[in-house]
Amino acid sequence: MTAAVRGRFITLEGGEGAGKSTQISRLKSWLESHGHTVLTTREPGGSPGAEMIRKLLVEGPADRWDGMTEALLHFAARRDHLHATVWPALDRGTWVVSDRFADSTRAYQGYGHGLDLSMLDRLYAIAIGDFGPDLTLILDLPVEAGLARAATRRGVETRYESLPRTFHDRVRAGFLEIARREPVRCAVIDTDREVEAVTRDVTRIVGERLGA
Amino acid sequence: MTAAVRGRFITLEGGEGAGKSTQISRLKSWLESHGHTVLTTREPGGSPGAEMIRKLLVEGPADRWDGMTEALLHFAARRDHLHATVWPALDRGTWVVSDRFADSTRAYQGYGHGLDLSMLDRLYAIAIGDFGPDLTLILDLPVEAGLARAATRRGVETRYESLPRTFHDRVRAGFLEIARREPVRCAVIDTDREVEAVTRDVTRIVGERLGA
Repeated sequence: MTAAVRGRFITLEGGEGAGKSTQISRLKSWLESHGHTVLTTREPGGSPGAEMIRKLLVEGPADRWDGMTEALLHFAARRDHLHATVWPALDRGTWVVSDRFADSTRAYQGYGHGLDLSMLDRLYAIAIGDFGPDLTLILDLPVEAGLARAATRRGVETRYESLPRTFHDRVRAGFLEIARREPVRCAVIDTDREVEAVTRDVTRIVGERLGA
Repeated sequence: MTAAVRGRFITLEGGEGAGKSTQISRLKSWLESHGHTVLTTREPGGSPGAEMIRKLLVEGPADRWDGMTEALLHFAARRDHLHATVWPALDRGTWVVSDRFADSTRAYQGYGHGLDLSMLDRLYAIAIGDFGPDLTLILDLPVEAGLARAATRRGVETRYESLPRTFHDRVRAGFLEIARREPVRCAVIDTDREVEAVTRDVTRIVGERLGA
């Protein structure tokens, strides 16, 4: 690999407690063992500006923002994350693995809060243009198992977790629907299994789809 | 006036130091003397959530955000301002006078920073819908006079004022162009005069256009 070869952009998506952080750490090691330079990042956040916006999104009461305001804040953070972190890294040949990206906005604000999905697509086109992930891994887990896992690491960022169970059901169904609609970009991975088995699927799919 | 009659939404626009705050205070008194209940507010800000976003926009270095990120943050703040403050007030019959609104995004991010104006219009439609001001007063002043006035009240909110003179020239020309394109909604008022003379024009135009 030379510096002139553009890196690839991989996003991991899924509900609370789906195991994204663990799998991202393991995917990074695997990609590095295959000779790639890897940057791991997260949304909302991933750049100094976007991390400031993140605080407005993940702290405070669940009804702090209406759905559209929240979507605008997510896209502002996303734009800054891409502009300051992701695009420069890809340009210098680094592979970027992000904990959440735009599918989370579709799942949480669209399927979860009922915002119009075509409107979110138009907002994406304005804010981001035609850039998108090379591969999206959707980590799927029954909602109760995920919330139970998430509760063990509860800090101040409880705004989403405090939403009702029915909300999280819609989010999970939304992620699965996104994967059905975009099968070339997306793959669903069952994470209600041993961590090692999940990692084997993650690395196998990355290898098959991106030739890593 | 009964509570069932919807209030009117008046916005004051213009560059730094154009005298918006002074004229808003005087317009409020004049409207109250004509029997209206008046709420004065400002952008970015005007609601608890939008004031948090304001801090991200008006503090820090001038290059903190790229133009698109900045526009998204302004529309997030605007949506929250409308949802939490302006729309409820108008519904209960209150007249709302805002120090800046969407024309400032057009002038600063569009004419000033070169963001595509039709893209900003599409963003407006997604974030706000078809709501808009009943009347917009554009307070016009030569750039040097405005910056000199603004310098006398300089605090931490210096991010826009620190941009180059040519930027402020484009912003002023942008506001005048907006007024030329939407003469029914907008009126330009020369504020390079005594405060009393400006107030006479402000109240005369509000009376003529809105029957206040």
